[in-house]
Amino acid sequence: MSDGFCVQCGNTVQLQIPEGDNRQRKVCTTCEYIHYENPKNVVGCLLEWQGKVLLCKRAIEPRRGFWTLPAGFMENHESTIEGAAREAYEEALARCDELRLFSVYNLPRISQVYLMFIGQLRDGFARANEETLEVRLFNQSDIPWSELAFPVVSETLTRYYEMREQRDRRVYSADILSRPGAPLEIVRHPH
Amino acid sequence: MSDGFCVQCGNTVQLQIPEGDNRQRKVCTTCEYIHYENPKNVVGCLLEWQGKVLLCKRAIEPRRGFWTLPAGFMENHESTIEGAAREAYEEALARCDELRLFSVYNLPRISQVYLMFIGQLRDGFARANEETLEVRLFNQSDIPWSELAFPVVSETLTRYYEMREQRDRRVYSADILSRPGAPLEIVRHPH
Repeated sequence: MSDGFCVQCGNTVQLQIPEGDNRQRKVCTTCEYIHYENPKNVVGCLLEWQGKVLLCKRAIEPRRGFWTLPAGFMENHESTIEGAAREAYEEALARCDELRLFSVYNLPRISQVYLMFIGQLRDGFARANEETLEVRLFNQSDIPWSELAFPVVSETLTRYYEMREQRDRRVYSADILSRPGAPLEIVRHPH
Repeated sequence: MSDGFCVQCGNTVQLQIPEGDNRQRKVCTTCEYIHYENPKNVVGCLLEWQGKVLLCKRAIEPRRGFWTLPAGFMENHESTIEGAAREAYEEALARCDELRLFSVYNLPRISQVYLMFIGQLRDGFARANEETLEVRLFNQSDIPWSELAFPVVSETLTRYYEMREQRDRRVYSADILSRPGAPLEIVRHPH
């Protein structure tokens, strides 16, 4: 069975460790092109308006109907902060002001790094669109904790309220570790 | 002329905007598989020992013979901090203690994000290997500023000494913007 095909010449690739390397890569059996695979960044933001936080109810799978912070895969030729602002616009037609880095999460099992930003929701304006069934500004007491889409969202909101109370503006960094059948483990990194 | 080949079926791909998307992707003309391309993370570290900083003289191109901080592409299934520690070992046989996030740099022109960590060089031990011609611990006054390999290295060392003097332990974030023929532009993000 083939491990796939070469993007350069279309012939088959095989898993092998290239010379001078220490990991298996997909190497073309014909032109020897090496296909590196690397983690992907997800960029997103927590937007505040008059003490409330913007959440979006997902219109698409996975986790359709659950609440999330605007976030998505970072694109080539943009910065992390531009990507976070783009996602806020794509998912909620929201514009952001004063974005700053809030947290970095490692999700090594699925080879993702989340970079979450925090900022102000311009004019308090947001609206649902194709990716979103509903947008809403939530007070802390109204956050739908049991209807949040992903552990990253719960973790970001939990740390946000904790750090807001302590007036702590440091960047928060953690590993979010999941293993099949085991409860989620969150390992905070030192500041 | 072909834009390349499909990793799933080996047939040709074509640049087009998939339905529901707003960017050109390489889409297979036969099986319609969409090939997303995303920014890559470079992870590295600044390691201290008795007030000195570890630099490595590069044994490989680009910038062979110039001094750098240990850094390289993040691999799948590792965290950013694990990747930074791995690079220190691969490039200088160095072990790290107390690593914490130091800076995040966006390099949108080349679709890279640098995540640099800071920590202690265990036992002050480092040694050159295949990737490194020479390792050395530098005092601030001895840093070879004109022989540094990359703008990211100069920027990290400059901010490090500035922030060390001010006892500033916040995470530093900036865009490093380069345009052909223009001087490098560094845009700092707010804390």
